[in-house]
Amino acid sequence: MKKDYRVIGFDADDTLWINETYFRDTEHEFSKLLKEYMPSEDIINNLFNTEIKNLDLYGFGIKGFTLSMIETAIQISDGKVSPEIINKIIELGKELHNKPVELIEDIKHVLSTLRGKGYKLIVATKGDLIDQERKLRKSELGDMFHHFEVMSDKKESDYRKLLQNINTSPDEFLMIGNSLKSDVIPVINIGAQGVHIPFHTTWQHEMITPDNNVKDKVIKLNKITEVIDFLTN
Amino acid sequence: MKKDYRVIGFDADDTLWINETYFRDTEHEFSKLLKEYMPSEDIINNLFNTEIKNLDLYGFGIKGFTLSMIETAIQISDGKVSPEIINKIIELGKELHNKPVELIEDIKHVLSTLRGKGYKLIVATKGDLIDQERKLRKSELGDMFHHFEVMSDKKESDYRKLLQNINTSPDEFLMIGNSLKSDVIPVINIGAQGVHIPFHTTWQHEMITPDNNVKDKVIKLNKITEVIDFLTN
Repeated sequence: MKKDYRVIGFDADDTLWINETYFRDTEHEFSKLLKEYMPSEDIINNLFNTEIKNLDLYGFGIKGFTLSMIETAIQISDGKVSPEIINKIIELGKELHNKPVELIEDIKHVLSTLRGKGYKLIVATKGDLIDQERKLRKSELGDMFHHFEVMSDKKESDYRKLLQNINTSPDEFLMIGNSLKSDVIPVINIGAQGVHIPFHTTWQHEMITPDNNVKDKVIKLNKITEVIDFLTN
Repeated sequence: MKKDYRVIGFDADDTLWINETYFRDTEHEFSKLLKEYMPSEDIINNLFNTEIKNLDLYGFGIKGFTLSMIETAIQISDGKVSPEIINKIIELGKELHNKPVELIEDIKHVLSTLRGKGYKLIVATKGDLIDQERKLRKSELGDMFHHFEVMSDKKESDYRKLLQNINTSPDEFLMIGNSLKSDVIPVINIGAQGVHIPFHTTWQHEMITPDNNVKDKVIKLNKITEVIDFLTN
Protein backbone atom coordinates (compact mmCIF):
# COMPACT_ATOMS: atom_id res chain seq x y z
CA MET A 1 0.00 0.00 0.00
CA LYS A 2 2.78 2.42 0.83
CA LYS A 3 4.01 4.31 -2.20
CA ASP A 4 7.28 5.93 -3.08
CA TYR A 5 6.55 9.41 -1.91
CA ARG A 6 9.01 12.02 -3.08
CA VAL A 7 7.45 15.24 -1.80
CA ILE A 8 5.94 15.72 1.65
CA GLY A 9 3.61 18.64 2.25
CA PHE A 10 3.03 20.08 5.69
CA ASP A 11 0.14 22.22 6.73
CA ALA A 12 1.47 25.09 8.88
CA ASP A 13 -1.02 26.19 11.58
CA ASP A 14 -1.37 23.49 14.26
CA THR A 15 0.85 21.11 12.28
CA LEU A 16 4.20 22.97 12.40
CA TRP A 17 3.29 25.50 15.06
CA ILE A 18 0.49 26.31 17.48
CA ASN A 19 -2.20 28.62 16.13
CA GLU A 20 -5.81 27.76 16.99
CA THR A 21 -5.17 28.14 20.71
CA TYR A 22 -4.29 31.82 20.17
CA PHE A 23 -7.52 32.45 18.24
CA ARG A 24 -9.58 30.75 20.98
CA ASP A 25 -7.85 32.90 23.64
CA THR A 26 -8.60 36.03 21.63
CA GLU A 27 -12.25 35.04 21.23
CA HIS A 28 -12.41 34.68 25.00
CA GLU A 29 -10.90 38.15 25.52
CA PHE A 30 -13.34 39.53 22.95
CA SER A 31 -16.34 38.04 24.75
CA LYS A 32 -15.13 39.55 28.04
CA LEU A 33 -15.12 43.03 26.44
CA LEU A 34 -18.79 42.60 25.53
CA LYS A 35 -20.05 40.70 28.55
CA GLU A 36 -22.65 43.34 29.41
CA TYR A 37 -24.53 42.50 26.19
CA MET A 38 -24.64 38.71 26.08
CA PRO A 39 -23.32 35.49 27.64
CA SER A 40 -19.87 34.53 26.38
CA GLU A 41 -21.04 31.48 24.43
CA ASP A 42 -23.61 33.51 22.48
CA ILE A 43 -21.05 36.18 21.65
CA ILE A 44 -18.65 33.56 20.29
CA ASN A 45 -21.47 31.98 18.24
CA ASN A 46 -22.36 35.37 16.78
CA LEU A 47 -18.72 35.96 15.92
CA PHE A 48 -18.53 32.59 14.18
CA ASN A 49 -21.59 33.42 12.10
CA THR A 50 -20.10 36.77 11.07
CA GLU A 51 -16.81 35.09 10.15
CA ILE A 52 -18.56 32.54 7.94
CA LYS A 53 -20.66 35.26 6.31
CA ASN A 54 -17.49 37.23 5.53
CA LEU A 55 -15.31 34.28 4.52
CA ASP A 56 -15.73 34.67 0.77
CA LEU A 57 -14.82 38.32 1.00
CA TYR A 58 -12.07 38.28 3.63
CA GLY A 59 -10.62 34.77 3.35
CA PHE A 60 -8.68 33.26 6.26
CA GLY A 61 -6.41 35.22 8.56
CA ILE A 62 -6.12 37.68 11.40
CA LYS A 63 -7.22 40.84 9.59
CA GLY A 64 -10.52 39.37 8.45
CA PHE A 65 -11.00 37.92 11.94
CA THR A 66 -10.44 41.38 13.47
CA LEU A 67 -12.91 43.03 11.08
CA SER A 68 -15.47 40.34 11.92
CA MET A 69 -14.95 40.95 15.65
CA ILE A 70 -15.62 44.68 15.16
CA GLU A 71 -18.73 43.99 13.05
CA THR A 72 -20.02 41.50 15.64
CA ALA A 73 -19.42 43.94 18.51
CA ILE A 74 -21.48 46.64 16.80
CA GLN A 75 -24.21 44.17 15.92
CA ILE A 76 -24.69 42.46 19.29
CA SER A 77 -24.51 45.76 21.20
CA ASP A 78 -27.15 47.15 18.86
CA GLY A 79 -24.79 49.96 17.93
CA LYS A 80 -24.04 50.87 21.54
CA VAL A 81 -20.48 49.56 21.87
CA SER A 82 -17.99 52.34 22.64
CA PRO A 83 -15.15 53.33 20.30
CA GLU A 84 -12.87 52.55 23.24
CA ILE A 85 -13.89 48.89 23.07
CA ILE A 86 -13.50 48.87 19.29
CA ASN A 87 -9.99 50.18 19.79
CA LYS A 88 -9.36 47.32 22.21
CA ILE A 89 -10.57 44.85 19.57
CA ILE A 90 -8.10 46.34 17.07
CA GLU A 91 -5.41 45.86 19.72
CA LEU A 92 -6.47 42.21 20.24
CA GLY A 93 -5.96 41.69 16.50
CA LYS A 94 -2.53 43.35 16.59
CA GLU A 95 -1.53 41.19 19.56
CA LEU A 96 -2.50 38.09 17.56
CA HIS A 97 -0.11 39.20 14.79
CA ASN A 98 2.64 39.58 17.35
CA LYS A 99 2.23 36.25 19.16
CA PRO A 100 5.40 34.19 19.42
CA VAL A 101 5.62 31.13 17.22
CA GLU A 102 5.58 28.05 19.40
CA LEU A 103 6.63 24.95 17.47
CA ILE A 104 4.77 21.65 17.71
CA GLU A 105 6.85 19.27 19.84
CA ASP A 106 9.59 17.39 17.97
CA ILE A 107 8.78 19.04 14.64
CA LYS A 108 12.39 20.10 14.01
CA HIS A 109 13.62 16.56 14.56
CA VAL A 110 10.97 15.14 12.24
CA LEU A 111 11.73 17.63 9.46
CA SER A 112 15.49 17.13 9.58
CA THR A 113 15.11 13.33 9.70
CA LEU A 114 12.87 13.35 6.62
CA ARG A 115 15.21 15.71 4.78
CA GLY A 116 18.08 13.41 5.67
CA LYS A 117 16.20 10.57 4.00
CA GLY A 118 15.97 12.58 0.79
CA TYR A 119 12.36 13.72 0.89
CA LYS A 120 11.56 17.12 -0.55
CA LEU A 121 9.58 19.06 2.07
CA ILE A 122 7.11 21.83 1.32
CA VAL A 123 4.62 23.92 3.30
CA ALA A 124 1.07 24.27 1.97
CA THR A 125 -0.99 26.56 4.14
CA LYS A 126 -4.12 28.67 4.03
CA GLY A 127 -4.26 32.10 5.54
CA ASP A 128 -2.88 35.51 5.01
CA LEU A 129 0.33 35.78 2.98
CA ILE A 130 2.06 38.30 5.24
CA ASP A 131 0.99 36.48 8.45
CA GLN A 132 2.23 33.10 7.28
CA GLU A 133 5.52 34.50 5.99
CA ARG A 134 6.03 36.20 9.34
CA LYS A 135 5.36 32.95 11.21
CA LEU A 136 7.72 31.00 8.97
CA ARG A 137 10.44 33.59 9.65
CA LYS A 138 9.85 33.47 13.40
CA SER A 139 9.75 29.65 13.37
CA GLU A 140 13.28 29.50 11.91
CA LEU A 141 12.13 26.44 9.96
CA GLY A 142 12.48 28.17 6.58
CA ASP A 143 15.68 26.32 5.59
CA MET A 144 13.94 22.98 5.97
CA PHE A 145 11.57 23.62 3.09
CA HIS A 146 12.04 23.50 -0.62
CA HIS A 147 8.85 25.49 -1.23
CA PHE A 148 6.42 27.59 0.81
CA GLU A 149 2.94 28.03 -0.64
CA VAL A 150 0.19 30.19 0.88
CA MET A 151 -3.14 29.24 -0.68
CA SER A 152 -6.37 31.21 -0.54
CA ASP A 153 -8.17 27.88 -0.11
CA LYS A 154 -7.36 24.18 0.03
CA LYS A 155 -9.80 22.60 -2.35
CA GLU A 156 -8.96 19.86 -4.84
CA SER A 157 -8.29 22.37 -7.63
CA ASP A 158 -5.92 24.30 -5.34
CA TYR A 159 -3.89 21.15 -4.65
CA ARG A 160 -3.83 20.27 -8.35
CA LYS A 161 -2.41 23.69 -9.15
CA LEU A 162 0.14 23.38 -6.34
CA LEU A 163 1.41 20.01 -7.55
CA GLN A 164 1.64 21.34 -11.10
CA ASN A 165 3.68 24.31 -9.84
CA ILE A 166 6.20 22.05 -8.14
CA ASN A 167 6.26 19.43 -10.93
CA THR A 168 4.98 16.64 -8.72
CA SER A 169 2.48 13.92 -9.62
CA PRO A 170 -0.21 13.01 -7.08
CA ASP A 171 1.19 9.54 -6.39
CA GLU A 172 4.50 11.06 -5.31
CA PHE A 173 2.82 13.41 -2.83
CA LEU A 174 2.01 12.93 0.85
CA MET A 175 0.26 15.76 2.72
CA ILE A 176 0.27 16.02 6.52
CA GLY A 177 -2.11 18.21 8.50
CA ASN A 178 -4.54 18.61 11.35
CA SER A 179 -7.63 19.33 9.25
CA LEU A 180 -9.43 16.42 7.59
CA LYS A 181 -11.36 18.94 5.52
CA SER A 182 -8.43 20.98 4.22
CA ASP A 183 -5.33 18.81 4.47
CA VAL A 184 -6.52 15.25 3.95
CA ILE A 185 -9.77 14.70 2.04
CA PRO A 186 -9.11 16.95 -1.00
CA VAL A 187 -5.61 15.48 -1.25
CA ILE A 188 -6.97 11.91 -1.28
CA ASN A 189 -9.60 12.97 -3.81
CA ILE A 190 -6.95 13.99 -6.33
CA GLY A 191 -5.10 10.70 -5.96
CA ALA A 192 -2.40 11.73 -3.51
CA GLN A 193 -2.20 10.60 0.14
CA GLY A 194 -3.25 12.58 3.20
CA VAL A 195 -2.17 11.95 6.78
CA HIS A 196 -4.35 13.29 9.57
CA ILE A 197 -2.71 14.33 12.83
CA PRO A 198 -5.40 15.95 14.98
CA PHE A 199 -4.59 18.97 17.15
CA HIS A 200 -6.47 19.27 20.43
CA THR A 201 -8.42 22.30 19.18
CA THR A 202 -10.07 22.55 15.77
CA TRP A 203 -11.93 25.54 14.39
CA GLN A 204 -15.63 24.71 13.94
CA HIS A 205 -15.41 25.58 10.25
CA GLU A 206 -12.79 22.86 9.67
CA MET A 207 -14.87 20.07 11.19
CA ILE A 208 -16.23 17.46 8.81
CA THR A 209 -17.25 13.81 8.65
CA PRO A 210 -15.72 12.19 5.58
CA ASP A 211 -17.68 9.91 3.26
CA ASN A 212 -17.10 6.22 3.83
CA ASN A 213 -15.16 5.67 0.62
CA VAL A 214 -12.69 8.39 1.59
CA LYS A 215 -12.63 7.52 5.28
CA ASP A 216 -10.95 4.19 4.59
CA LYS A 217 -8.09 5.88 2.81
CA VAL A 218 -7.30 8.36 5.57
CA ILE A 219 -4.15 7.61 7.51
CA LYS A 220 -4.47 8.85 11.05
CA LEU A 221 -1.47 9.27 13.32
CA ASN A 222 -1.40 10.59 16.86
CA LYS A 223 1.68 12.76 16.69
CA ILE A 224 4.11 14.12 14.19
CA THR A 225 6.97 11.81 15.25
CA GLU A 226 4.96 8.81 14.03
CA VAL A 227 5.41 10.09 10.47
CA ILE A 228 9.02 8.88 10.53
CA ASP A 229 7.99 5.30 11.40
CA PHE A 230 5.17 5.42 8.89
CA LEU A 231 7.52 6.41 6.08
CA THR A 232 10.54 4.32 6.90
CA ASN A 233 9.29 1.03 8.33
CA MET B 1 20.84 47.10 -25.84
CA LYS B 2 17.68 45.06 -26.23
CA LYS B 3 18.04 41.56 -24.89
CA ASP B 4 16.34 38.32 -25.66
CA TYR B 5 13.63 38.43 -23.07
CA ARG B 6 11.79 35.17 -22.58
CA VAL B 7 9.51 35.96 -19.62
CA ILE B 8 7.51 39.17 -19.21
CA GLY B 9 6.18 40.07 -15.78
CA PHE B 10 3.22 42.36 -15.33
CA ASP B 11 2.30 44.21 -12.20
CA ALA B 12 -1.48 43.88 -11.65
CA ASP B 13 -2.98 46.96 -9.96
CA ASP B 14 -2.93 49.95 -12.33
CA THR B 15 -0.98 47.98 -14.93
CA LEU B 16 -3.55 45.30 -15.89
CA TRP B 17 -6.56 46.88 -14.24
CA ILE B 18 -7.57 50.07 -12.46
CA ASN B 19 -7.07 50.08 -8.70
CA GLU B 20 -5.68 53.21 -7.12
CA THR B 21 -8.65 55.29 -8.30
CA TYR B 22 -10.96 53.11 -6.15
CA PHE B 23 -8.81 53.60 -3.06
CA ARG B 24 -8.74 57.39 -3.61
CA ASP B 25 -12.54 57.43 -3.99
CA THR B 26 -12.91 55.44 -0.76
CA GLU B 27 -10.58 57.82 1.08
CA HIS B 28 -12.78 60.66 -0.09
CA GLU B 29 -15.94 58.91 1.20
CA PHE B 30 -14.12 58.18 4.45
CA SER B 31 -13.20 61.83 4.94
CA LYS B 32 -16.82 62.87 4.31
CA LEU B 33 -17.97 60.57 7.15
CA LEU B 34 -15.64 62.41 9.53
CA LYS B 35 -15.94 65.95 8.24
CA GLU B 36 -17.15 67.31 11.59
CA TYR B 37 -13.75 66.53 13.13
CA MET B 38 -11.22 67.79 10.60
CA PRO B 39 -10.72 69.14 7.06
CA SER B 40 -10.66 66.38 4.42
CA GLU B 41 -6.97 66.79 3.60
CA ASP B 42 -5.94 66.39 7.24
CA ILE B 43 -8.10 63.30 7.62
CA ILE B 44 -6.46 61.71 4.57
CA ASN B 45 -2.99 62.59 5.89
CA ASN B 46 -3.83 61.01 9.23
CA LEU B 47 -5.06 57.90 7.46
CA PHE B 48 -1.85 57.69 5.44
CA ASN B 49 0.22 57.92 8.63
CA THR B 50 -1.81 55.13 10.24
CA GLU B 51 -1.41 52.96 7.13
CA ILE B 52 2.36 53.40 7.11
CA LYS B 53 2.55 52.69 10.83
CA ASN B 54 0.56 49.46 10.31
CA LEU B 55 2.25 48.38 7.08
CA ASP B 56 4.68 45.89 8.65
CA LEU B 57 1.83 44.24 10.51
CA TYR B 58 -0.96 44.35 7.94
CA GLY B 59 0.87 44.42 4.61
CA PHE B 60 -0.88 45.72 1.49
CA GLY B 61 -4.56 45.22 0.72
CA ILE B 62 -8.12 46.20 1.49
CA LYS B 63 -8.50 44.56 4.91
CA GLY B 64 -5.48 46.36 6.37
CA PHE B 65 -6.70 49.58 4.74
CA THR B 66 -10.14 49.13 6.37
CA LEU B 67 -8.63 48.46 9.79
CA SER B 68 -6.46 51.58 9.39
CA MET B 69 -9.53 53.64 8.48
CA ILE B 70 -11.30 52.48 11.67
CA GLU B 71 -8.24 53.20 13.81
CA THR B 72 -7.88 56.66 12.25
CA ALA B 73 -11.58 57.46 12.78
CA ILE B 74 -11.33 56.67 16.49
CA GLN B 75 -8.11 58.61 16.82
CA ILE B 76 -9.07 61.84 15.04
CA SER B 77 -12.50 61.95 16.70
CA ASP B 78 -10.77 61.54 20.06
CA GLY B 79 -12.86 58.43 20.71
CA LYS B 80 -16.14 60.18 19.86
CA VAL B 81 -16.94 58.58 16.48
CA SER B 82 -20.21 56.61 16.56
CA PRO B 83 -20.41 52.84 16.00
CA GLU B 84 -22.75 53.70 13.13
CA ILE B 85 -19.93 55.47 11.31
CA ILE B 86 -17.55 52.59 12.07
CA ASN B 87 -20.10 50.28 10.50
CA LYS B 88 -20.15 52.53 7.44
CA ILE B 89 -16.36 52.29 7.25
CA ILE B 90 -16.60 48.48 7.30
CA GLU B 91 -19.11 48.78 4.47
CA LEU B 92 -16.75 51.05 2.50
CA GLY B 93 -14.13 48.29 2.79
CA LYS B 94 -16.58 45.62 1.64
CA GLU B 95 -17.57 47.77 -1.33
CA LEU B 96 -13.91 48.05 -2.30
CA HIS B 97 -13.70 44.23 -2.37
CA ASN B 98 -16.74 44.14 -4.63
CA LYS B 99 -15.67 46.78 -7.16
CA PRO B 100 -15.80 45.64 -10.76
CA VAL B 101 -12.49 45.01 -12.45
CA GLU B 102 -11.96 47.59 -15.16
CA LEU B 103 -9.14 46.63 -17.49
CA ILE B 104 -6.49 49.09 -18.62
CA GLU B 105 -7.21 50.05 -22.24
CA ASP B 106 -5.86 47.63 -24.86
CA ILE B 107 -4.36 45.27 -22.27
CA LYS B 108 -6.02 42.18 -23.75
CA HIS B 109 -4.67 42.97 -27.20
CA VAL B 110 -1.17 43.53 -25.82
CA LEU B 111 -1.19 40.27 -23.83
CA SER B 112 -2.42 38.13 -26.70
CA THR B 113 0.03 39.73 -29.13
CA LEU B 114 2.95 39.03 -26.82
CA ARG B 115 1.78 35.47 -26.22
CA GLY B 116 1.49 35.02 -29.96
CA LYS B 117 5.14 36.01 -30.25
CA GLY B 118 6.09 33.24 -27.83
CA TYR B 119 6.75 35.22 -24.68
CA LYS B 120 5.87 33.59 -21.36
CA LEU B 121 3.69 36.03 -19.41
CA ILE B 122 3.41 36.15 -15.64
CA VAL B 123 1.76 38.40 -13.07
CA ALA B 124 3.82 39.60 -10.11
CA THR B 125 1.74 41.65 -7.72
CA LYS B 126 1.73 42.84 -4.14
CA GLY B 127 -1.41 42.84 -2.06
CA ASP B 128 -3.75 40.43 -0.44
CA LEU B 129 -3.83 36.89 -1.85
CA ILE B 130 -7.63 36.53 -1.86
CA ASP B 131 -8.18 40.05 -3.27
CA GLN B 132 -5.75 39.59 -6.14
CA GLU B 133 -7.09 36.13 -7.00
CA ARG B 134 -10.61 37.57 -7.06
CA LYS B 135 -9.53 40.39 -9.38
CA LEU B 136 -7.73 37.99 -11.70
CA ARG B 137 -10.89 35.86 -11.90
CA LYS B 138 -13.08 38.88 -12.60
CA SER B 139 -10.62 40.21 -15.17
CA GLU B 140 -10.94 37.01 -17.23
CA LEU B 141 -7.25 37.41 -18.08
CA GLY B 142 -6.23 34.24 -16.20
CA ASP B 143 -5.66 32.15 -19.33
CA MET B 144 -3.12 34.65 -20.63
CA PHE B 145 -0.67 33.93 -17.83
CA HIS B 146 1.71 31.10 -17.23
CA HIS B 147 2.11 32.03 -13.57
CA PHE B 148 0.39 34.29 -11.03
CA GLU B 149 2.44 35.34 -8.02
CA VAL B 150 1.15 37.40 -5.11
CA MET B 151 4.11 38.76 -3.14
CA SER B 152 4.05 40.24 0.36
CA ASP B 153 6.59 42.79 -0.88
CA LYS B 154 8.50 43.62 -4.05
CA LYS B 155 12.05 44.05 -2.89
CA GLU B 156 15.12 42.73 -4.68
CA SER B 157 15.11 39.51 -2.63
CA ASP B 158 11.44 38.93 -3.48
CA TYR B 159 12.16 39.19 -7.20
CA ARG B 160 15.18 36.88 -6.87
CA LYS B 161 12.96 34.26 -5.21
CA LEU B 162 10.28 34.70 -7.86
CA LEU B 163 12.74 34.19 -10.75
CA GLN B 164 14.16 31.13 -9.03
CA ASN B 165 10.63 29.71 -8.63
CA ILE B 166 9.95 30.05 -12.34
CA ASN B 167 13.44 28.96 -13.46
CA THR B 168 14.22 32.25 -15.15
CA SER B 169 17.52 34.12 -15.15
CA PRO B 170 17.48 37.91 -14.67
CA ASP B 171 18.66 38.67 -18.21
CA GLU B 172 15.66 36.81 -19.65
CA PHE B 173 13.18 38.81 -17.56
CA LEU B 174 11.35 42.05 -18.34
CA MET B 175 9.01 43.51 -15.71
CA ILE B 176 6.32 46.06 -16.55
CA GLY B 177 4.55 48.20 -13.98
CA ASN B 178 3.36 51.59 -12.83
CA SER B 179 5.53 51.84 -9.72
CA LEU B 180 9.19 52.81 -10.11
CA LYS B 181 9.74 51.75 -6.51
CA SER B 182 8.16 48.30 -6.69
CA ASP B 183 8.14 47.24 -10.34
CA VAL B 184 11.20 48.83 -11.88
CA ILE B 185 14.12 49.76 -9.60
CA PRO B 186 14.44 46.46 -7.66
CA VAL B 187 14.17 44.56 -10.95
CA ILE B 188 16.98 46.60 -12.52
CA ASN B 189 19.04 46.16 -9.36
CA ILE B 190 19.03 42.38 -9.73
CA GLY B 191 20.13 42.55 -13.37
CA ALA B 192 16.76 42.22 -15.10
CA GLN B 193 14.97 45.01 -16.99
CA GLY B 194 12.10 47.14 -15.73
CA VAL B 195 9.68 49.14 -17.83
CA HIS B 196 7.84 52.03 -16.18
CA ILE B 197 4.36 52.90 -17.44
CA PRO B 198 2.95 55.56 -15.09
CA PHE B 199 -0.71 55.53 -14.10
CA HIS B 200 -2.34 58.91 -13.52
CA THR B 201 -2.64 58.25 -9.78
CA THR B 202 0.14 56.86 -7.59
CA TRP B 203 -0.10 56.06 -3.90
CA GLN B 204 2.17 58.36 -1.88
CA HIS B 205 4.00 55.36 -0.43
CA GLU B 206 5.06 54.22 -3.92
CA MET B 207 6.66 57.54 -4.89
CA ILE B 208 10.42 57.61 -5.17
CA THR B 209 13.24 59.37 -6.98
CA PRO B 210 15.71 56.82 -8.32
CA ASP B 211 19.48 57.19 -8.00
CA ASN B 212 21.20 58.48 -11.11
CA ASN B 213 22.91 55.20 -11.93
CA VAL B 214 19.57 53.40 -11.93
CA LYS B 215 17.64 56.23 -13.56
CA ASP B 216 19.54 55.82 -16.82
CA LYS B 217 18.53 52.20 -17.09
CA VAL B 218 14.78 52.77 -16.62
CA ILE B 219 12.72 52.36 -19.75
CA LYS B 220 9.70 54.63 -19.62
CA LEU B 221 6.73 54.16 -21.91
CA ASN B 222 3.51 56.13 -22.01
CA LYS B 223 1.05 53.33 -22.48
CA ILE B 224 0.90 49.59 -22.48
CA THR B 225 0.50 49.27 -26.29
CA GLU B 226 4.00 50.73 -26.70
CA VAL B 227 5.40 47.53 -25.15
CA ILE B 228 4.71 45.69 -28.41
CA ASP B 229 6.79 48.14 -30.43
CA PHE B 230 9.51 48.14 -27.82
CA LEU B 231 9.82 44.37 -27.95
CA THR B 232 9.40 43.73 -31.63
CA ASN B 233 11.01 46.64 -33.46
